Amino acid sequence: MTDALLDVVGRGLRVYDLGRQLSVGMPQSPNHPAFWHTLPRRHGDMVRADGSSAANDMIVTGTHVGTHIDALAHVSHRGRLHGGADAAQAGRGGRYLEHGVHTIAPMIRRGVLLDVPAALGVDALEPGYEITPADLDATKRAQRTELAPDDVVLVRSGWGRHFDAGADAYVGRETGVPGVSEAGARWLADRRPHAVGADTIAFERLAPGGGHSSLPAHRVLLVESGVYIVEALALDELAEQRVHEFTLVLVPLNILGATGSPVRPLAVVARA
Amino acid sequence: MTDALLDVVGRGLRVYDLGRQLSVGMPQSPNHPAFWHTLPRRHGDMVRADGSSAANDMIVTGTHVGTHIDALAHVSHRGRLHGGADAAQAGRGGRYLEHGVHTIAPMIRRGVLLDVPAALGVDALEPGYEITPADLDATKRAQRTELAPDDVVLVRSGWGRHFDAGADAYVGRETGVPGVSEAGARWLADRRPHAVGADTIAFERLAPGGGHSSLPAHRVLLVESGVYIVEALALDELAEQRVHEFTLVLVPLNILGATGSPVRPLAVVARA
Amino acid sequence: MTDALLDVVGRGLRVYDLGRQLSVGMPQSPNHPAFWHTLPRRHGDMVRADGSSAANDMIVTGTHVGTHIDALAHVSHRGRLHGGADAAQAGRGGRYLEHGVHTIAPMIRRGVLLDVPAALGVDALEPGYEITPADLDATKRAQRTELAPDDVVLVRSGWGRHFDAGADAYVGRETGVPGVSEAGARWLADRRPHAVGADTIAFERLAPGGGHSSLPAHRVLLVESGVYIVEALALDELAEQRVHEFTLVLVPLNILGATGSPVRPLAVVARA
Amino acid sequence: MTDALLDVVGRGLRVYDLGRQLSVGMPQSPNHPAFWHTLPRRHGDMVRADGSSAANDMIVTGTHVGTHIDALAHVSHRGRLHGGADAAQAGRGGRYLEHGVHTIAPMIRRGVLLDVPAALGVDALEPGYEITPADLDATKRAQRTELAPDDVVLVRSGWGRHFDAGADAYVGRETGVPGVSEAGARWLADRRPHAVGADTIAFERLAPGGGHSSLPAHRVLLVESGVYIVEALALDELAEQRVHEFTLVLVPLNILGATGSPVRPLAVVARA
Repeated sequence: MTDALLDVVGRGLRVYDLGRQLSVGMPQSPNHPAFWHTLPRRHGDMVRADGSSAANDMIVTGTHVGTHIDALAHVSHRGRLHGGADAAQAGRGGRYLEHGVHTIAPMIRRGVLLDVPAALGVDALEPGYEITPADLDATKRAQRTELAPDDVVLVRSGWGRHFDAGADAYVGRETGVPGVSEAGARWLADRRPHAVGADTIAFERLAPGGGHSSLPAHRVLLVESGVYIVEALALDELAEQRVHEFTLVLVPLNILGATGSPVRPLAVVARA
Repeated sequence: MTDALLDVVGRGLRVYDLGRQLSVGMPQSPNHPAFWHTLPRRHGDMVRADGSSAANDMIVTGTHVGTHIDALAHVSHRGRLHGGADAAQAGRGGRYLEHGVHTIAPMIRRGVLLDVPAALGVDALEPGYEITPADLDATKRAQRTELAPDDVVLVRSGWGRHFDAGADAYVGRETGVPGVSEAGARWLADRRPHAVGADTIAFERLAPGGGHSSLPAHRVLLVESGVYIVEALALDELAEQRVHEFTLVLVPLNILGATGSPVRPLAVVARA
Repeated sequence: MTDALLDVVGRGLRVYDLGRQLSVGMPQSPNHPAFWHTLPRRHGDMVRADGSSAANDMIVTGTHVGTHIDALAHVSHRGRLHGGADAAQAGRGGRYLEHGVHTIAPMIRRGVLLDVPAALGVDALEPGYEITPADLDATKRAQRTELAPDDVVLVRSGWGRHFDAGADAYVGRETGVPGVSEAGARWLADRRPHAVGADTIAFERLAPGGGHSSLPAHRVLLVESGVYIVEALALDELAEQRVHEFTLVLVPLNILGATGSPVRPLAVVARA
Repeated sequence: MTDALLDVVGRGLRVYDLGRQLSVGMPQSPNHPAFWHTLPRRHGDMVRADGSSAANDMIVTGTHVGTHIDALAHVSHRGRLHGGADAAQAGRGGRYLEHGVHTIAPMIRRGVLLDVPAALGVDALEPGYEITPADLDATKRAQRTELAPDDVVLVRSGWGRHFDAGADAYVGRETGVPGVSEAGARWLADRRPHAVGADTIAFERLAPGGGHSSLPAHRVLLVESGVYIVEALALDELAEQRVHEFTLVLVPLNILGATGSPVRPLAVVARA
């Protein structure tokens, strides 16, 4: 008897790749070590007796680089991590055994896209635009999308189009970046999602010129609510195809004690 | 109407994590840059006006480190990559645009475990043991497992138990390591799998004291057959549960031009 | 009997530090891997039985970063390194055994400062200003400085003041950067120096908006003349003190096969 | 009038290179990130319009790797750095502003070699041998070498010959490594040297099988006495030539807040 999952898989899936390609020079926050890839060994460097040769790589990177997930250990408030652990103690030894990214189980669960600009009738939200609870309600209504506890909720702002324009445009330090702020984060947290995500570098609204000086949505979600945050997602193809509900596959690297991981999330639906 | 995939997901899945945890000092081949993780910023290093603080990471690693997948660009033979491309030219620019790991599509497809020691009636194969075509046939028969084209075929040797004993034991330079050699690789390639994998560091049989001086199975699979190889898998739980058929989820990092990627593959089945 | 050198040292030296401090975020060319420093282990992470504890570091960096020296292997022209070696062959194996930075002997030799802006009666040269042979002649004359073969000749432009203003200002992509171009490089090469240096990131004149698209002085000096180039020097203190002649101490890291090395050169004079 | 230093330099120097070459796979302590060098760009990867091409490097390394100097911030005792600063507070921000390697001034000063095996009439000290105060006295006497305050005192054990035999031999975890222990360190500290050094990986005596579990000489020198320690020196050539007194040139990289730096120290004497 065939496994029910394998049966669906066998009939064909449509897979949307929500991860950005990792390449040297891609947009990323200057707060994190830059992504770098190099080939220590190329073909021909050392040829074995049978004529074969191997090439290999070296990667240097932060974990909050490219499309990535924030573990709960990433942010503290008044010296406490989510659940009250002492943040200074938690990092002793050079890794966060509590709430590190190794504690995030691989996700295969319901995902939902909230396409805010589509609901508001625009291509993309303005730089620095704050997505309000009213906007989120309106989007949910316009899409007729229900949110259930433990869903992964992806909030699209339309900002993803700037990724290919380079770091200055996408990071948006001068212009600001659209997203939820404290109120919107609380609206999300109240739905008890498993994780949330966005198509911007910091998930939440950044004021023009403000950079990362204040990140209240991170506090609400990571510290107060225990909700993971996924950043720098590629959401435009989902939006174009009006795929608002899907199976979200997200598998963080199992890095002992890290505060985050690059990820390549997938939105998957069964072929009609 | 609910999506058929989401419907199965909603009824519950059993997920087996086939990836090793990435931690400083774990076993890896000395041919590749060592995995290292450190925290440039810990909680308390810089506290924002609102009392919040962020910790972050820096990762240095090869890509053939931990559980990982080999892209076709990893190995050449007589100066040629799979399909005949000039291997020296392909790496010009410091990345393999052809056959790099960015060309491997995320996998959600049928996976099969060939539990060779179980079929042979032993706990684990001997160091340096060569898994022959006859062994593979016997395993298939004992398990009553059919192999179909485009499957991901994971060959268990039982060697994975040495992972926690440290690099010397797991890398097995002195002792040798069990696995298929050229004949077994050809047996696999003849089944036209999408990818193959094993619970050892080099997938294929290593002779005692021989190290990586000769890797014929890599040539047969990567160069001649265009079949990806996954290494350092954790297969013991699958074996204990006798899960021989499953949905394999494997999502490489989308690193432009790299020859491989750390991965955390999952074997997934619907809950009964 | 006391060694003559030790005797002079014992009477007192004045040491000018010509190297820039290495810190995360300092100006550097985006062509090279960014300098990063982090502490994998801090005090208290692991305390030994006797109450002692050690902290340590991890460094990631290019070698043409901070104050640094270019080995002859850094630049080729029409596929040839200095002396005619095939440049592609020379790098086989992932390191330049010929003309790599490990072939540069530590330097303790006569150094000379050519303070061009002082000779021209300005504080600093304009962005993109080309230092001509006539300027170099005028500077030599104004200072009454003789140049001898095997000297290290440091050409000051006054641009060093921009180092603390950040990468955009110092790298000067938009504005251009002052320095010698092909003619000035040839003037220098004709004096047969052991090495040359400047207080800018690329030693030679960069046209506004041009970046590193054309670097003729590198070709003249490294490829045609076998003269090392030192970049991003701190020369203002020497200039203020009108120290135009000194003992130059420069000790590259002995990195097998690298194309350059960070250095911290010293200009040393005996105390009067 | 010629500068007195330049005058001596002009008459010729003999330079002894006391630094080890940095290469991938060289012996180093597993406590520190491994040295790695790779070429992100090789000649031919990108050729400029004029036919020139540049190759460059990426380095990953700990700072207590290869021949290196320990800053005072490297070791604490009972939560205190040298002078009493709180060790945990000192590292806040991810760098040691107090007692970091950037606070070590470049050294051009008297250096002394204490060739212990020569004085004891052996080629090299036994593994795990403790160099006692009596040994140091005997060596000083045999050589007729005086020690003055602020000297750099290099203690030779003969262990350097194992460097080329690979990491296991040189690190000497199983065998132990010769060197001073607490008493010898105190003998040295009582002479008020500026820095001390040795031809072993940890400067001080390591007991067979003991590794770095107890490092009393580090405590005495770095924490209690404010004396820098230089490790993994190449001292055999000095010993062969019986050069027991010289000018020591040692220029650490000016890395803001690091606990150490790779160095390439020179012993220099005037040519007779």
